[in-house]
Amino acid sequence: MYDRFKWEGDISLKAVILAAGEGRRLYSKTRGYPKPLTRLLGLSIIERGILTARTVGITDFIIVVGYQGKKIMETLGDGSRYNVNITYVENPEWRRGNGVSLLKTKEFIDKPFILMMSDHVFDSSILKYLLEFDGRYECIIAVDRKPKEYIDIEEATKLKVRGDKIIDIGKKIDGFHGLDCGLFLMTPDIFDALEESISRGDETLSGGIKVLIDRGRVGYIDIKGAFWIDIDTPSDYSIAERQLLRNLIKPTDGPISKFLNRPISLSISKYLVNTDITPNTISFISFILSIPAAYLFFKNISYIYILLAGLLTQISSIIDGVDGEIARLKYQQSKYGARLDSCLDRYSDALIIFGMTHGYWILYGRGELIWFIGTAALIGSFMNSYTAIKYDTIIESRKTKSFRIGRDIRLFLIMIGAIANQILPTLIILAIITNLESLRRLYVMRDTSGS
Amino acid sequence: MYDRFKWEGDISLKAVILAAGEGRRLYSKTRGYPKPLTRLLGLSIIERGILTARTVGITDFIIVVGYQGKKIMETLGDGSRYNVNITYVENPEWRRGNGVSLLKTKEFIDKPFILMMSDHVFDSSILKYLLEFDGRYECIIAVDRKPKEYIDIEEATKLKVRGDKIIDIGKKIDGFHGLDCGLFLMTPDIFDALEESISRGDETLSGGIKVLIDRGRVGYIDIKGAFWIDIDTPSDYSIAERQLLRNLIKPTDGPISKFLNRPISLSISKYLVNTDITPNTISFISFILSIPAAYLFFKNISYIYILLAGLLTQISSIIDGVDGEIARLKYQQSKYGARLDSCLDRYSDALIIFGMTHGYWILYGRGELIWFIGTAALIGSFMNSYTAIKYDTIIESRKTKSFRIGRDIRLFLIMIGAIANQILPTLIILAIITNLESLRRLYVMRDTSGS
Repeated sequence: MYDRFKWEGDISLKAVILAAGEGRRLYSKTRGYPKPLTRLLGLSIIERGILTARTVGITDFIIVVGYQGKKIMETLGDGSRYNVNITYVENPEWRRGNGVSLLKTKEFIDKPFILMMSDHVFDSSILKYLLEFDGRYECIIAVDRKPKEYIDIEEATKLKVRGDKIIDIGKKIDGFHGLDCGLFLMTPDIFDALEESISRGDETLSGGIKVLIDRGRVGYIDIKGAFWIDIDTPSDYSIAERQLLRNLIKPTDGPISKFLNRPISLSISKYLVNTDITPNTISFISFILSIPAAYLFFKNISYIYILLAGLLTQISSIIDGVDGEIARLKYQQSKYGARLDSCLDRYSDALIIFGMTHGYWILYGRGELIWFIGTAALIGSFMNSYTAIKYDTIIESRKTKSFRIGRDIRLFLIMIGAIANQILPTLIILAIITNLESLRRLYVMRDTSGS
Repeated sequence: MYDRFKWEGDISLKAVILAAGEGRRLYSKTRGYPKPLTRLLGLSIIERGILTARTVGITDFIIVVGYQGKKIMETLGDGSRYNVNITYVENPEWRRGNGVSLLKTKEFIDKPFILMMSDHVFDSSILKYLLEFDGRYECIIAVDRKPKEYIDIEEATKLKVRGDKIIDIGKKIDGFHGLDCGLFLMTPDIFDALEESISRGDETLSGGIKVLIDRGRVGYIDIKGAFWIDIDTPSDYSIAERQLLRNLIKPTDGPISKFLNRPISLSISKYLVNTDITPNTISFISFILSIPAAYLFFKNISYIYILLAGLLTQISSIIDGVDGEIARLKYQQSKYGARLDSCLDRYSDALIIFGMTHGYWILYGRGELIWFIGTAALIGSFMNSYTAIKYDTIIESRKTKSFRIGRDIRLFLIMIGAIANQILPTLIILAIITNLESLRRLYVMRDTSGS
């Protein structure tokens, strides 16, 4: 018996991934490839599982392969491409139950481990909950107590709980309390249990877990609404795709971002994620689009110039969301990428506002007042970004909803102002609201004085 | 015996401060007040000790008072003004040795505690080293193994060490290894030791410690060159003042700051720290000075305007150092203060550059090129500040020296340009170096990709 599973940050837990089955029902998407290699938003399902586990610190994987195992091994290699180590265990008897597959890893396991399914897509928070579990059990199951409407309950493995224990598991049990999400924290005790279960004729993983349940040795964690799905059918595949994209919407997204930019940028990301284009390249594309926008504002030869400039500004604003979306979908986030993006954004903000100011100036008598207004709008925009870094941290820590004038709103206002051919009022509004917003943020942060 | 002193962040250690003596030799500075209440750069010496200890998390103090104890108690009160708790222990026998004073606290102490002297000024890092000590001793002494040239070795208490133990203590010992800095981590075992020592006729703290030394129970930590001084004489007082001011020079200070601004701002701080002026008020004064500077640049009626504007800019830059200096001297630092200061700095940078641009524009044909240059200088200045937040963190963590174009250099260039009456070249230089500097920083930060 293993006393504690408490995850101490310095993780040395291995993860076993069962990837031996055939997955025939997903045929239309797999195109002859083994199911774990089916591509879903730029990554194969099994790659996504590995990279999700890596975010919580797991870097050692044992993958049980069977059906078309060679293809999986060739594709994933030794894991160095993902900065992890992968060991393969071949299971020629992959047509038998998945309990047989797990049993093949027995000699590679001598302490608690994470068990994952190669065809499940899930949020890393479920792994975090498992790793934070602190108790004495031989097996802990991640349980979804309130399955979303898209989960195929018929096909799912059900669980019954009493207190902090699991008391029954199976596909067909009445009055169940939750679903098994295909993620487990286990001790090597599972292997004896599997042997016992197999000798009785039940070759499934559930059979082995049932043996531990009968001994009263199975606990659970609640996944608290976190996302997971078992991809068995083309319909599951589409649901996974949709949910993964939805998860990219940030709670801090402003209103324009949420209702206008995101829906469009997600469609673009859904397409681009399957290409080799990097997030940083997309940051540059968004920046480069702002150059003709600024130039058209700057020249201001006719309304068409202004109109096009406004539309380009909004397009640049939308593309500005794509880099982060692709980075998150492909686990390519980097601090440097975020910094590059934010610096380029500042330059494109400045170019556009300068272009607008100059364009108005050449058309209307070359006065000096417009330079005041333009400079004030420029300063205000910068100050918004300058204060955003600290402000967002504070607001997030307070967990209060708060309206915030961000880049999405600023660039949207510019587009609206351009369509209405009202450059001066737009600059005046920008100058006022951005500077007032900076003052408001300074005022809000005042409460944190001394901290 | 107490096993471990390991400080776990959540500090509940009390600090005892010995403040019963008369301190006659400092008479010219104390002006009839008890020595601990002597004011040194805006705070009394004992207040400074309390606030220094508070920075490492100590909030419970026991102060032993004797000579003019009432004045000390009236001045410090219950400590609520400093966000700490103060308990007073009166020692009417204050003419006897300081061992007697410490013994008076016996009934208030039931676990390890910090012992401080009310007339010592020291850097908080010494307390940190003490609190991080991890070992089994009844007394740990903070030892200065390489005393600075200004320390009065004659008067200091000397120590001899062997291995990790102290083997001798006293004012007159030969071949000593270091000096006692007046900071200790002690267990209540000291009280028995003091009683033993006093019964033998030695009423000093050193006497009590000697008893523990003879039992082999005294360890030490090395203060690694940290600042401390025992203020006994007017000369010590001046040294403390000079050193505290010197400690305000930041390792990240740019060259102009280091060699021009700091020497002047420190003189101003030395004076203003004795007034009630707050750091935030000084931030506003620095900002407000930039308004006439910007206005004079903006109007550009004659060279005198430009000259005055340049000088005001540099004065504002110098004053900009004072707020932080006073905040640190008086332990009034706050995140809000730092944020307010940096936001005001951005506005004054923008005002000055805008003023320069406009001033040049009205004088030289009202062309458009100057607006390009001015806006580029404005953007570059902002980008420098925008990237500084992350950049400085990275550079500090790398511990490499790195030249950095900061605000001190930008404003100094503006002053030089104004004196030379060369607004256009100044703006061109600013536009180029600030933007190049931003690119350079982005490039330097590239190495931290993924982290």
